[in-house]
Amino acid sequence: MEDSDNLRHRLREFVDAQVIPAEDALEDEARAEQARARLRAAAKEAGLWALPLPAEQGGAGLPLADYFELAEDEGRSDHGPEALGSASLLNARMLAAHADPGLRERILPGLVAGELHLAYAMTEPGVAGSDPHGLRTEAKQAQDGRWRIAGRKWFTSGAARAGMILVVARTETEDAAPRDSFSILAVPAEAAGFRIVRELDVLGAGGQYEIEFDQVTVPAAHLVGPRGGGLRLAGRRLALGRTLRALRWIGQAQRAVELLAARVRERRLGAETLADRQLMQGLVFEAELQVRGARLLTRQAASLVAADRPSTVEVSMAKVAAARALSTAADSAIQAYGAEGLTAASGLPRLLRTARAARILDGADELHISGGARRLLRQYATAGNQTGRADDLVDDTIRGSGE
Amino acid sequence: MEDSDNLRHRLREFVDAQVIPAEDALEDEARAEQARARLRAAAKEAGLWALPLPAEQGGAGLPLADYFELAEDEGRSDHGPEALGSASLLNARMLAAHADPGLRERILPGLVAGELHLAYAMTEPGVAGSDPHGLRTEAKQAQDGRWRIAGRKWFTSGAARAGMILVVARTETEDAAPRDSFSILAVPAEAAGFRIVRELDVLGAGGQYEIEFDQVTVPAAHLVGPRGGGLRLAGRRLALGRTLRALRWIGQAQRAVELLAARVRERRLGAETLADRQLMQGLVFEAELQVRGARLLTRQAASLVAADRPSTVEVSMAKVAAARALSTAADSAIQAYGAEGLTAASGLPRLLRTARAARILDGADELHISGGARRLLRQYATAGNQTGRADDLVDDTIRGSGE
Amino acid sequence: MEDSDNLRHRLREFVDAQVIPAEDALEDEARAEQARARLRAAAKEAGLWALPLPAEQGGAGLPLADYFELAEDEGRSDHGPEALGSASLLNARMLAAHADPGLRERILPGLVAGELHLAYAMTEPGVAGSDPHGLRTEAKQAQDGRWRIAGRKWFTSGAARAGMILVVARTETEDAAPRDSFSILAVPAEAAGFRIVRELDVLGAGGQYEIEFDQVTVPAAHLVGPRGGGLRLAGRRLALGRTLRALRWIGQAQRAVELLAARVRERRLGAETLADRQLMQGLVFEAELQVRGARLLTRQAASLVAADRPSTVEVSMAKVAAARALSTAADSAIQAYGAEGLTAASGLPRLLRTARAARILDGADELHISGGARRLLRQYATAGNQTGRADDLVDDTIRGSGE
Amino acid sequence: MEDSDNLRHRLREFVDAQVIPAEDALEDEARAEQARARLRAAAKEAGLWALPLPAEQGGAGLPLADYFELAEDEGRSDHGPEALGSASLLNARMLAAHADPGLRERILPGLVAGELHLAYAMTEPGVAGSDPHGLRTEAKQAQDGRWRIAGRKWFTSGAARAGMILVVARTETEDAAPRDSFSILAVPAEAAGFRIVRELDVLGAGGQYEIEFDQVTVPAAHLVGPRGGGLRLAGRRLALGRTLRALRWIGQAQRAVELLAARVRERRLGAETLADRQLMQGLVFEAELQVRGARLLTRQAASLVAADRPSTVEVSMAKVAAARALSTAADSAIQAYGAEGLTAASGLPRLLRTARAARILDGADELHISGGARRLLRQYATAGNQTGRADDLVDDTIRGSGE
Repeated sequence: MEDSDNLRHRLREFVDAQVIPAEDALEDEARAEQARARLRAAAKEAGLWALPLPAEQGGAGLPLADYFELAEDEGRSDHGPEALGSASLLNARMLAAHADPGLRERILPGLVAGELHLAYAMTEPGVAGSDPHGLRTEAKQAQDGRWRIAGRKWFTSGAARAGMILVVARTETEDAAPRDSFSILAVPAEAAGFRIVRELDVLGAGGQYEIEFDQVTVPAAHLVGPRGGGLRLAGRRLALGRTLRALRWIGQAQRAVELLAARVRERRLGAETLADRQLMQGLVFEAELQVRGARLLTRQAASLVAADRPSTVEVSMAKVAAARALSTAADSAIQAYGAEGLTAASGLPRLLRTARAARILDGADELHISGGARRLLRQYATAGNQTGRADDLVDDTIRGSGE
Repeated sequence: MEDSDNLRHRLREFVDAQVIPAEDALEDEARAEQARARLRAAAKEAGLWALPLPAEQGGAGLPLADYFELAEDEGRSDHGPEALGSASLLNARMLAAHADPGLRERILPGLVAGELHLAYAMTEPGVAGSDPHGLRTEAKQAQDGRWRIAGRKWFTSGAARAGMILVVARTETEDAAPRDSFSILAVPAEAAGFRIVRELDVLGAGGQYEIEFDQVTVPAAHLVGPRGGGLRLAGRRLALGRTLRALRWIGQAQRAVELLAARVRERRLGAETLADRQLMQGLVFEAELQVRGARLLTRQAASLVAADRPSTVEVSMAKVAAARALSTAADSAIQAYGAEGLTAASGLPRLLRTARAARILDGADELHISGGARRLLRQYATAGNQTGRADDLVDDTIRGSGE
Repeated sequence: MEDSDNLRHRLREFVDAQVIPAEDALEDEARAEQARARLRAAAKEAGLWALPLPAEQGGAGLPLADYFELAEDEGRSDHGPEALGSASLLNARMLAAHADPGLRERILPGLVAGELHLAYAMTEPGVAGSDPHGLRTEAKQAQDGRWRIAGRKWFTSGAARAGMILVVARTETEDAAPRDSFSILAVPAEAAGFRIVRELDVLGAGGQYEIEFDQVTVPAAHLVGPRGGGLRLAGRRLALGRTLRALRWIGQAQRAVELLAARVRERRLGAETLADRQLMQGLVFEAELQVRGARLLTRQAASLVAADRPSTVEVSMAKVAAARALSTAADSAIQAYGAEGLTAASGLPRLLRTARAARILDGADELHISGGARRLLRQYATAGNQTGRADDLVDDTIRGSGE
Repeated sequence: MEDSDNLRHRLREFVDAQVIPAEDALEDEARAEQARARLRAAAKEAGLWALPLPAEQGGAGLPLADYFELAEDEGRSDHGPEALGSASLLNARMLAAHADPGLRERILPGLVAGELHLAYAMTEPGVAGSDPHGLRTEAKQAQDGRWRIAGRKWFTSGAARAGMILVVARTETEDAAPRDSFSILAVPAEAAGFRIVRELDVLGAGGQYEIEFDQVTVPAAHLVGPRGGGLRLAGRRLALGRTLRALRWIGQAQRAVELLAARVRERRLGAETLADRQLMQGLVFEAELQVRGARLLTRQAASLVAADRPSTVEVSMAKVAAARALSTAADSAIQAYGAEGLTAASGLPRLLRTARAARILDGADELHISGGARRLLRQYATAGNQTGRADDLVDDTIRGSGE
């Protein structure tokens, strides 16, 4: 098997040489589809496609722990995971483990091959992301077993080009425990009653949608996982999802620090360069310090996640630290670039946009701080017992908008 | 004359009821011209047009000190000054004081009436905003007295719809003192050799341009102010310009705090609202504290500027504090809104965009910090003598991109 | 009457030339009494004694609004108010307004003359400063009208040299409303059952005590203010007390900035000085910015307090801003001094100590942030009505340890 | 050999049960000597004495990498290293490697046994810690080979009880390169002309001294290391010294977080505890996050130091991060304790004192930020070449007061 340093080197080369230069095209509706297809082909050709997906589904079968070593470099561009076929990891894992076999067989091969796109729809307009029990989309089962779904979702990534939407809906009555009241259903995009309401303008970027399920019906076999078990499934994907995103944010933070370093070295001011100014040195040192600290914290969380060990506090800390490191690094790079750093051509506003969203998506930082502290205090109270109770995991981890 | 509280109240009503709802239109190229015309007419109708412009030029003749009382509310929208006819203040003052009478008469009435737009072009691609002596645009005078201008500028606001561009160009040879080497020239947009190179994408917004002067010639009478005195004129407009922008940033910061307060009061979480959460209370308190502090500092600077007294340190502090207050308030409002705050529909990304630019435009904060500290140290060294030397003013104040 | 600028100048001279050089002596038990006596005599001689105290009590009769103009300079040393006879202001006002005439006549003259020291005892060991309703010291009235007091207090400033202690004690039974359950009683230091338990070591400084009332009895006439009205009285003195202390902290912050400025100017590093280093410039600018902002906020609060208008939010903001400005300025001065700044001889640890305590005394910052935000949110909710309800004032303002 | 987890557990027990309770005694001149002797005996009895010292010198012979695993827990008290006999590590290593054999044999056994104390004297009054080339203490060699030393040092830890002082003095003339101009000499405390000038009051603590060498003479054999090589030796001990101190600061930061956690859990406020307050949760989360991040960064630096690989940037980052983590944790614990946290009895002021000093000693943070950034920028410039040039190490690492 390929030496891991070599693989990492090749992957980083691919992202820097192929994905990053294509970012403008990937964010331009008219050119996006073609750019994605070209990158997909190139990634497959390079043997870099779908690295963490199981071999039996068409992936490269890299264990999670090994993939985590690559996720930072893959994530140097927000488009890296999609370009390299690992963006489907969370959905593919969920379907492989919980979907009806027939559904699974129909979807998985295309999903892993990058030919079918899936969207995951949890967040709803008007409902706090921190309050999943407040979700209002409902699914009712008719006597023939079919589910009838009604409700609205938003911040559904890639809904417009999805062939299938995984939607979290209330399936149980009010007397069930809130945490046991929701299920996940797979809805084909062509189902009657499903529609894209509008594309959201998220800090100037597109790709996220408000969607509506207006009495959409799907067969009983489209229930994913146990009835009433939706929030548990959602919670489980969150730990992995957050870890991956934290790694990607660090990748982008590292990219921002590199741009910052290049700028201060090269920008001349008479006989000096910006690198000779202590306030610029301060920006460099602080950004690097935050990136390194966040990287170590995130790797620690990732190793717990890979080992399937309790990781809620560690993931919260990694998430918060990575979002901050990216915010600091992108902001500092812009400051060093001056007015030019505000322009799209510098590539920096894109990093700043991801940075700002990072402090909200995957659970606003405040939720992680408050929830993380409560969990930490329980751990300190039981001195030496550094693990939370297993059933705590569900409640906290499902919180937060984002997948 | 109208009672000042009443005037302020009416102006704020106008901004909130007319300008803010029109922001989307004003930022959409297809609808902007019509929206501007409609607002201009409404402002004139309401007697709110061109308040600080001299009566003899067609303005309402409000003294600077009185206008400063209104500038915060006017600036609650980035489009307020334009909608209310005070955006032309800096250019009108410069032309009234320094332009050739013929030129002045041709331009001023239309400028003050809002029928002619002027652009001010100082910043250049590839030249640090902090280093005006590095500007490379040149103007050479032919024997017939005409000036021939060659060079590029960028971050020129509103260049595409300007009828005239005021451009800072090197007119003196290398043996002149750097600070005496530049002059300001007025270039009609229809002059041969002038062209818009491209519109810049500035954090997703338009309206700023890269422009080129390719051997453009203008008559001798288009020299504004004394030959070689360009940086002195530029420096003088900066003190006023920065003060006005600081006031406007505070207006937008106040708007962000109001949105933040409304959100935390209204967002329900079970039996509570966000307002019951201490971390949200913290966001409210800190944002309000920063806005109030920045407001007081900016008013203090404004009163010095209105009295034409030394104000460099005070303006630097106001600028830095106002930019930070806006950054904090806009960021906190977004955090309280959650994912919805990232969407254009919330109105918040627009405030965040201005906030991010504020820390760079008008001189990056680092320049104000370093320059302000050096000046402060001189003041402390001469204990009790709290004023800088007059000739210091020029050097420092001309720095910074932005007008 | 003396010109106010002249008075301020003389007062500042006195503090800088007489009080600050005496700080070591004033903090050394063996020399303190003599140093105090010398300063008291000098202040009286200079006509600077007891400026804000009413003329009929032996003070100079300066209105509060005028005294506020001086309080910052007086507070450049923690010992300024005592040295200048204004430290008794809060107690003197309370006694003048609320004490039994006989008691008042016996105490006030000596208090204002600086010959009698009073201590104010509210905070108790084991009771959160934010929870005055939890106070456990009790006073019961016997049939003969005498009060019998039992309980412990701590952080009682100057208890060891006090001739009289004003103590907040529960006088009502559990069925009274908590806010109406406490009264203030004056206890002579020589009363049987009163004792100093120990002097507290507060960040290395002395002067604060734990004291005990072990069945101390005092006459009925020693009740100060209405029975059950203790927390209302305590609340009222807090608004003034906090404002004064905020002004004094700003005085010390200003002193720290001056020390910082002097150090960076004078410290040589080869051909340069520290003043040439941008990171040092950053310390100077940030400290000055915070001091100026806090000064303006505190003056705004002070003008409300002087006018007896609602000021809770403004005082909270002033308190938080002043404590932070002092923390920043003292910390920065130490950083610029390097290791020498850690030594007592530099005078800086004293400022740092006051700074650290400032964020806790007078109500921990967190209480002001949380309470201030809730009050602000009510104000924003009633748009335009920028004043809190009067009866809100009591509840929040009594919180916080310190007088 | 003892299992490392077990050793670490025993060591931590020893520090918590024996050293921390003795801190008051160890800082009280009258009781210190006895307390030190008792702890020394107990540590030897427990087999915890001199763990990192070489076996041939009387230590336990633990390799550096293994000792680094223990240093955090040992450092939970500032007195841990002395109590456990590892405080002599830096001096012992320097002497073992560089001292004349006779001198070495006379000193090392007593030093490692804890019976002889050595002081290391580098910092001088009036000379910036960042400018070792400015040191003014001189040593001149007479024809008989004896060295005659004249000069002053301060911040010399433990000088009053030292039997020998290692002093950095200029031995070469002005025409030598500055970095080759200094040497290290061992001066017996009883040498004529050596005296303790005064004990410094460092944030209220003692133990550091100003000392004078007034024409003190020592034999030629008291030169430690090569003539002119003093700064190189000093630089080398700094990398290890800084790493050890960073580990110890993290130990104390961890102790502060534990105190913080205990306080917020236990402090009641009516039906709630402080742990239910989000602002307190924020203090807990942020402190823990900083401690964990600093720990990972410091371990990374330590592993480079143990492997004798280039580590300047990593040590700078560890130093800065550890000092900040301790500052945050100690400050937060005090804030949660309220006024009680300001008292010596809470144990927290001691941690805050170390925290404040940490940002200055071992090189002020600003030096690490500026120097670290310059080094980082060189590394980024040579892309992929992540190591600094070896000869850079000397210049930067010698900077900073402290050993």
